[in-house]
Amino acid sequence: MVNENFIKAIAMPADSKLVLLILDGVGGLPLDGKTELETAHTPNLDNLAKQSICGLADPVDYGITPGSGPGHLALFGYNPLHYEIGRGVLEALGVGMELTGKDVVARGNFATVDKQGVITDRRAGRIATEKNKEICRILQNGIEEIGDVQVIVKPGKEHRFVVLFRGEGLDGRITDTDPQSTGQPPIPARALAAEAEPTVRVVNAFVRKAVGILKDDRPANMILLRGFAKYPNLSSMRELFQIHPAAIAAYPMYKGLAKLVGMKILETGETIGDEFQTLEKNFAYHDFFYVHIKKTDSYGEDGNFQAKVKVIEEADKHIPQLLNLKPDVVVVTGDHSTPSLLKGHSWHPCPFLLYSRFARVDEISRFTEKECAKGSLGRFPLVKTIPLMLSHGLRLKKFGA
Amino acid sequence: MVNENFIKAIAMPADSKLVLLILDGVGGLPLDGKTELETAHTPNLDNLAKQSICGLADPVDYGITPGSGPGHLALFGYNPLHYEIGRGVLEALGVGMELTGKDVVARGNFATVDKQGVITDRRAGRIATEKNKEICRILQNGIEEIGDVQVIVKPGKEHRFVVLFRGEGLDGRITDTDPQSTGQPPIPARALAAEAEPTVRVVNAFVRKAVGILKDDRPANMILLRGFAKYPNLSSMRELFQIHPAAIAAYPMYKGLAKLVGMKILETGETIGDEFQTLEKNFAYHDFFYVHIKKTDSYGEDGNFQAKVKVIEEADKHIPQLLNLKPDVVVVTGDHSTPSLLKGHSWHPCPFLLYSRFARVDEISRFTEKECAKGSLGRFPLVKTIPLMLSHGLRLKKFGA
Repeated sequence: MVNENFIKAIAMPADSKLVLLILDGVGGLPLDGKTELETAHTPNLDNLAKQSICGLADPVDYGITPGSGPGHLALFGYNPLHYEIGRGVLEALGVGMELTGKDVVARGNFATVDKQGVITDRRAGRIATEKNKEICRILQNGIEEIGDVQVIVKPGKEHRFVVLFRGEGLDGRITDTDPQSTGQPPIPARALAAEAEPTVRVVNAFVRKAVGILKDDRPANMILLRGFAKYPNLSSMRELFQIHPAAIAAYPMYKGLAKLVGMKILETGETIGDEFQTLEKNFAYHDFFYVHIKKTDSYGEDGNFQAKVKVIEEADKHIPQLLNLKPDVVVVTGDHSTPSLLKGHSWHPCPFLLYSRFARVDEISRFTEKECAKGSLGRFPLVKTIPLMLSHGLRLKKFGA
Repeated sequence: MVNENFIKAIAMPADSKLVLLILDGVGGLPLDGKTELETAHTPNLDNLAKQSICGLADPVDYGITPGSGPGHLALFGYNPLHYEIGRGVLEALGVGMELTGKDVVARGNFATVDKQGVITDRRAGRIATEKNKEICRILQNGIEEIGDVQVIVKPGKEHRFVVLFRGEGLDGRITDTDPQSTGQPPIPARALAAEAEPTVRVVNAFVRKAVGILKDDRPANMILLRGFAKYPNLSSMRELFQIHPAAIAAYPMYKGLAKLVGMKILETGETIGDEFQTLEKNFAYHDFFYVHIKKTDSYGEDGNFQAKVKVIEEADKHIPQLLNLKPDVVVVTGDHSTPSLLKGHSWHPCPFLLYSRFARVDEISRFTEKECAKGSLGRFPLVKTIPLMLSHGLRLKKFGA
């Protein structure tokens, strides 16, 4: 299978405009015989499918349920089995942290320990987010650096926060301090590779200082860290694919994922309408647009079938606005499926359409899982999205003589 | 492509029950326009296909005809290009030998040599199986060990036998003593790797001793050995996939293959009815069942189209009995195709169905090669069977954050 470096060798610039429209978790499972896509009234997506090539795409592989990290790596053209976005990094992107190649990050919980230092509550009674913000402010003021290493603490929701260590030569191969159960003390961090020893000393010094500051602050008198990860060093999409990509996403994590591959982040609003307006306004200034619609996934995770249907229908209404811009290539798909029935990401492949005047169009009547299963793209890896978009945009040279 | 160690990292236990029903060599080719599956009356398999996802699965790769070893490795979730079950091992499993990780085995022929030691018949006139048993008994009594190495001789059919060498540090990288033609003497075994030298000395000593015992016993006055192989050291399916698998198979070789990956072998009878009864009786005690039906392949090998059709129809009658057990996931497929037209294994992909309440069901009307070709699983590697069964059984964690 060709990889991103193979594509790099044949990628060339062109005038074509490419749009990757992601309905996060759009693929589903039937309720009363019909999936969310089959239930939704989607005249515009259906009409687009009639002019497209279609298929079913696997973000990682048959039967594998991807997180948002692997799903987006695949969409952006990076093999999700070769690159890893650690949990800490994803969490940091999710709270809107700006990361650099020098950063090691971890997810944190505020927790409660008794007088013997034994954990009695891993979530400190799920303290209020406001309280969390206040504690993070106190921690940040008390600990700005450990030796040469800068420390940044940022609150999440309830008991959750993210801690970032920024310095030369840091390494993320570090074990969790969170034992994942009560009745025992937190575990000092350990290095999983010799190169991570200096980072471990910083992390354990941070925990000691934090506990010194929090010790009388029940219920949040302890911190537990997990998911240590270094910000991955990925070549940019611009360098690999000769495109100038821009991202339109309302949620911080997706902006962060786009930034990771060198996309320009375009400011936008909360609604789908805002996102399409941002696309219209900026269409002249970039040649690749990643547009991310989140709520298909959110409602899928909630098990709210009807609300997911409504989001699909809302997205459908904006398809004419997108086509009015006369894009050369449009892909509509997901980064994974999120069937309302399963209330979570799933292993089911993503319905996929690619519209282009150079597509050898299928005879597909609707944008649904079943119709896409009949498409000429067949069942294929989602990481082919970028090569397919580039080729239909006449942006790939011939391979070989 | 993900491998079994990738799956190991995300596998988790669950309550779901998985059944892998193998109709050995079920895929075929048309005679008078219809394949064996298309000719067979299979209302129950057809009804199951209507509630399933379907596809065509390649055991090894496009165009490759697999032996039973690679076919079953793929079915059990092991990449058949990474692991090898040597011919000697397969033969030993076929005669029902119990193998251990210390064993090197080879296939043997009784043969005839003239006074100059030149082979005149590689099969000793295809001596009767009864005669073979008698000679093996004599050999076994005469040679129980060579130095520290235990020797076990077990008869097969006609002129065929298996010899097993059990001891520390044995190595199977050894050349055949069988020159594969008459008019020349047997060849002393040679080592293909330095580590196999001690084993070669044992093997050649065994041949000398055997010839000493057999020398006046025309036509079986010589032995020819081939297909030396060490019993492969595979991680068990339990360890890799967090399942407790059991095998229901009437033929020794398939029990042996199942044992190789750590399955519990359930005692059963000769008929398909016996096998399904064994499944019923043991359904509470395991969470993964491999049920092997042999005669689809046997009649395919014989070129007996109608008899193969009858076996398929007989298997079909037991599908309701299987579904009454309320399994969470059922796969029906083969380990390869055996078209009656070709009288042997073939490279044609295996018709495949997977039934589960979490499957995104296809619009397939029958369990046939042509209908499966329309399924949403597309054309895919048979080694995906286990990841697909585990995911539909909700036994795989999300990959990545």
